[in-house]
Amino acid sequence: MLDTLTEILNANKTYVESFGEKGKLNSPPQKQMAILTCMDARLDPAKFAGFSEGDVHVIRNAGGRASDDAIRSLVISHKMLGTKFWFVIQHTKCGMQGATNDGIAQLLEESLETIQIDENSALNEKRDSGSAEGYKVDWLPIDNLEESVKNDVFRIRNHPLVSDTISIYGLIYDVESGCLKQVDGAISMAK
Amino acid sequence: MLDTLTEILNANKTYVESFGEKGKLNSPPQKQMAILTCMDARLDPAKFAGFSEGDVHVIRNAGGRASDDAIRSLVISHKMLGTKFWFVIQHTKCGMQGATNDGIAQLLEESLETIQIDENSALNEKRDSGSAEGYKVDWLPIDNLEESVKNDVFRIRNHPLVSDTISIYGLIYDVESGCLKQVDGAISMAK
Repeated sequence: MLDTLTEILNANKTYVESFGEKGKLNSPPQKQMAILTCMDARLDPAKFAGFSEGDVHVIRNAGGRASDDAIRSLVISHKMLGTKFWFVIQHTKCGMQGATNDGIAQLLEESLETIQIDENSALNEKRDSGSAEGYKVDWLPIDNLEESVKNDVFRIRNHPLVSDTISIYGLIYDVESGCLKQVDGAISMAK
Repeated sequence: MLDTLTEILNANKTYVESFGEKGKLNSPPQKQMAILTCMDARLDPAKFAGFSEGDVHVIRNAGGRASDDAIRSLVISHKMLGTKFWFVIQHTKCGMQGATNDGIAQLLEESLETIQIDENSALNEKRDSGSAEGYKVDWLPIDNLEESVKNDVFRIRNHPLVSDTISIYGLIYDVESGCLKQVDGAISMAK
């Protein structure tokens, strides 16, 4: 079996062979859009929102949350590269939903190793020690999904470095159907 | 011309029609991989590294930097969802390369509006005011690209919440050729 690095480099060779004119693309996103979404492996924003290389900035983190770092990226996206339509897209069955800061910190204090994901997993055979550093982190867990999208849209809107010429839309992606839907009230149009 | 939201929702309808069995995918990434890369519109990690929905966590921010928030996401990725191969992929011609914290803060102090991207752009017609808040932010600019990848691999490696059972690889993506290459010395294998 190939190791992970070799597998990626082999797949990349195939991509390079059909790269074509993409090397001439400019840096500013052609659709003037930025999407903030979750790192979840089931999400492929280019596919679910229908865009190609060169079109859209994509910012992703655990939960698709409007963290300080996501806002750093969004501000750069507008100021330096001209995006003015921003989408906050969180999703159903997110691992961050129902989690709590204390719960995550406790798990990390017990061990840094992966929790038991399924009963046949051997992941926990090798245990390493834990760390109490997790109590210092805001893990940005999600309680209510709609509220989280709305709060994040308005956290971005009210940030002192966010221009009021940007429109911000909050959506939820359904991992079981692939469907995007708007969240009521999670919208803030450019002035 | 369709507005941006309608365009996305229309593209999503097409995706939903061919969604097939993807609704049954599980949350833990099948390849046990997480990729940290830049938000740059020219990058499509699923395409350049050859993976599909369900395979890989993708974390993206301005620069593909190992920010505190990227590390929050990576720690969740391993602890809750079992990834153990992490890739830091920064790229050539990144907007963050050559920028400085003071330079970005100064631009934002002048105006929050987009800088002139090209001479035909009308983006600057509508000017809004600036903010000095940018001086409080570490914008994570990149001086030397190889060094940035190496530093970020080792920042992650040395973080107290990162298990030593994870392997971390640093790569550079060339936006003009589509080619991924390893950065010498930017690798830290699991113990």
